[in-house]
Amino acid sequence: MRTREACAALDAADPLKDRRALFALPGGDIYLDGNSLGPPPASALKRLDAAAREEWAEGLIGSWNTAGWMDLPLKLGARLARLIGVEGDEVIAIDTVTINIFKLAAALIAREGGALAAEAGEFPTDGHVLEGLSRISGAPFHRVAPDTPPSDLPADVRVLVKSAVHYKSARIADFERWEREAAQRGLSIIWDLSHATGVIDLKLKSWGARYAVGCGYKFLNGGPGAPAFLYCARGETPKLEHPVTGWLGHARPFEFEDAYAPADGIARWRTSSPSILALSTLDGALDAYDGVDMARVEAKAGVLGDILLERAQALGLETACPGIGERRGGHVVLRHEQGYAIVQAMIARGITGDFRAPDLMRFGFNPLYLSHVEVFDAGATLAEVINTREWDRPEFTARKAVT
Amino acid sequence: MRTREACAALDAADPLKDRRALFALPGGDIYLDGNSLGPPPASALKRLDAAAREEWAEGLIGSWNTAGWMDLPLKLGARLARLIGVEGDEVIAIDTVTINIFKLAAALIAREGGALAAEAGEFPTDGHVLEGLSRISGAPFHRVAPDTPPSDLPADVRVLVKSAVHYKSARIADFERWEREAAQRGLSIIWDLSHATGVIDLKLKSWGARYAVGCGYKFLNGGPGAPAFLYCARGETPKLEHPVTGWLGHARPFEFEDAYAPADGIARWRTSSPSILALSTLDGALDAYDGVDMARVEAKAGVLGDILLERAQALGLETACPGIGERRGGHVVLRHEQGYAIVQAMIARGITGDFRAPDLMRFGFNPLYLSHVEVFDAGATLAEVINTREWDRPEFTARKAVT
Repeated sequence: MRTREACAALDAADPLKDRRALFALPGGDIYLDGNSLGPPPASALKRLDAAAREEWAEGLIGSWNTAGWMDLPLKLGARLARLIGVEGDEVIAIDTVTINIFKLAAALIAREGGALAAEAGEFPTDGHVLEGLSRISGAPFHRVAPDTPPSDLPADVRVLVKSAVHYKSARIADFERWEREAAQRGLSIIWDLSHATGVIDLKLKSWGARYAVGCGYKFLNGGPGAPAFLYCARGETPKLEHPVTGWLGHARPFEFEDAYAPADGIARWRTSSPSILALSTLDGALDAYDGVDMARVEAKAGVLGDILLERAQALGLETACPGIGERRGGHVVLRHEQGYAIVQAMIARGITGDFRAPDLMRFGFNPLYLSHVEVFDAGATLAEVINTREWDRPEFTARKAVT
Repeated sequence: MRTREACAALDAADPLKDRRALFALPGGDIYLDGNSLGPPPASALKRLDAAAREEWAEGLIGSWNTAGWMDLPLKLGARLARLIGVEGDEVIAIDTVTINIFKLAAALIAREGGALAAEAGEFPTDGHVLEGLSRISGAPFHRVAPDTPPSDLPADVRVLVKSAVHYKSARIADFERWEREAAQRGLSIIWDLSHATGVIDLKLKSWGARYAVGCGYKFLNGGPGAPAFLYCARGETPKLEHPVTGWLGHARPFEFEDAYAPADGIARWRTSSPSILALSTLDGALDAYDGVDMARVEAKAGVLGDILLERAQALGLETACPGIGERRGGHVVLRHEQGYAIVQAMIARGITGDFRAPDLMRFGFNPLYLSHVEVFDAGATLAEVINTREWDRPEFTARKAVT
């Protein structure tokens, strides 16, 4: 197991260490839940203030023109594009992950015909929304075994939703194999980047990916319920029509025409007015990623995870994610039948992780604001909580509404 | 035409005059565009600050439990319910107007069969989204003549979307007649309350209305692109399943089950995580309506509109909305072939209205922050701008992106 001194040496040499000062984190705590809700960069709060107090309160309706509100989903899309390895005009920040999957999957299944598929044990929304789409469109829906490669999917499947990083196991998908097999059989894959964006070095374009959705409030730190985003390869957008056709996806919204004519570019994926306050907050949050090399972010996340896994190994804890030195997403997953109570006891000590039923403890690592020593210290606390049975108190074992 | 002194007397006796102090309005300007984007009540900015700087930055993920984030859409729904005349557990603040129409219409057409309909000249989204739903569901879509009563709709129509207040004409729908005829022929009406909520004394329940959507950023002042809301009568929700099935509409979201089981109550209409910052802002904004009698709001809006219409009559301007003394929504509409430039010249004078193609000038009146004298003064400026042809300058005639 790495020593605390070895971790301190890693911190001293960390090319990302200047990023920590950009965040407004509560003092003293170690936050290992940025994979669920990121903390605010100071720039996010500043940008939100300006949007609320200058653009809205002072500029009022005129800010649609003068503050660039109309193009904000596209501007944010261009900033997000760099983080996922696609072109600036292929991404739009809009709506939620669920709604964006619905739009993409509905447009694709209308064009391609055939059936929809998602894996068993996938993040629930991804399957739920395909089931809903199946009911309304008549396209069959298949629930397939985890990690079924495209060549083994039922013959009628034409649209698959798949997580880039699995929310429980932290396994990273084999993008290139999936896209290669998808191309061979005429399958469209919608990648769910929720647990990947901002922590994994995504190169969607070079991997052949054409469709994706992602989340603004996890590693991207855009605020609770921040706007999601949608990626659709430039050549595909003009060939797709989604059914949630609102006036802002119209080619000429301010002509107020009865007949729907979809916008040409990525704006086609708009529906109606997005929250400008929420978009502005995400805009400010993305400043923390300016100039950051995502390969370095992924590499550091891997080491941070390794540090906790080394501790877990020493404690004899079962791991439920790729092991030490293996490639994984920005979180690690440990199994313990008292996982819920252990996580609560850790939170009481100022170290926040989360729990996923039935017995999984998740700890997430955003390399922009976490140090190697902090993760080492979190591991030491985990050892104490388990070894002293500190978790065995009613206030830790009683379940809260949101886990 | 009423005199300025008569308007001052109305202000002195105005039971709503204490509300103005609740708003953070730019000094000196007269804002007649609250029907498009309301200005912030100070309580909205304060509540937003607390959500961003305390709940998010300090409370982080724990605020889902401790700050009531999970129930915020329902809490807001209960506050909105009073303004539209329904019960507190029949409304949820979530998503956008377009998406909420899609969800309601999709659930209804799946249950009822038959066809969808919207009027020609309706707010564009309302028809666009039914067209999109028609494409994916196979249910026919009919574009019907303005104000076609339910008994005259094509025989197969089972779902109609109709504005409570028309965005152009400011005409108020005849709710009771429409619902009576709807009941006779088995029609479901989805009322679009975008231009009605917060200015009209809505009594949806007593009018027999079962379904509605509404907008948070117009008269409700919830911020640009504020969350929309959805009303579904308590007895109908358990009988309806919408297709945009996200994990937060699940009966047990934190069990993370593959199988979808919709929540029982109004939470069934959730999709995935809404912006907490946007919801909190709307929550704070609604404080301005606390204890306010909506009948008084509607009555004052009517008089404010009359004051501008009296001026328009004196100027010989054509009106495109119900006339002096007639019941109408919270805005008036005047026709002028140079309407665009006139509105721009008014804005340059600090009086903000808006323009709707091809030749309509709209001026909206939120009785919570506007005085009778302000509207009188706006009318005087309108007269000057027209009589002196002040509008006839290139900076006023050149079109901006957002009108």
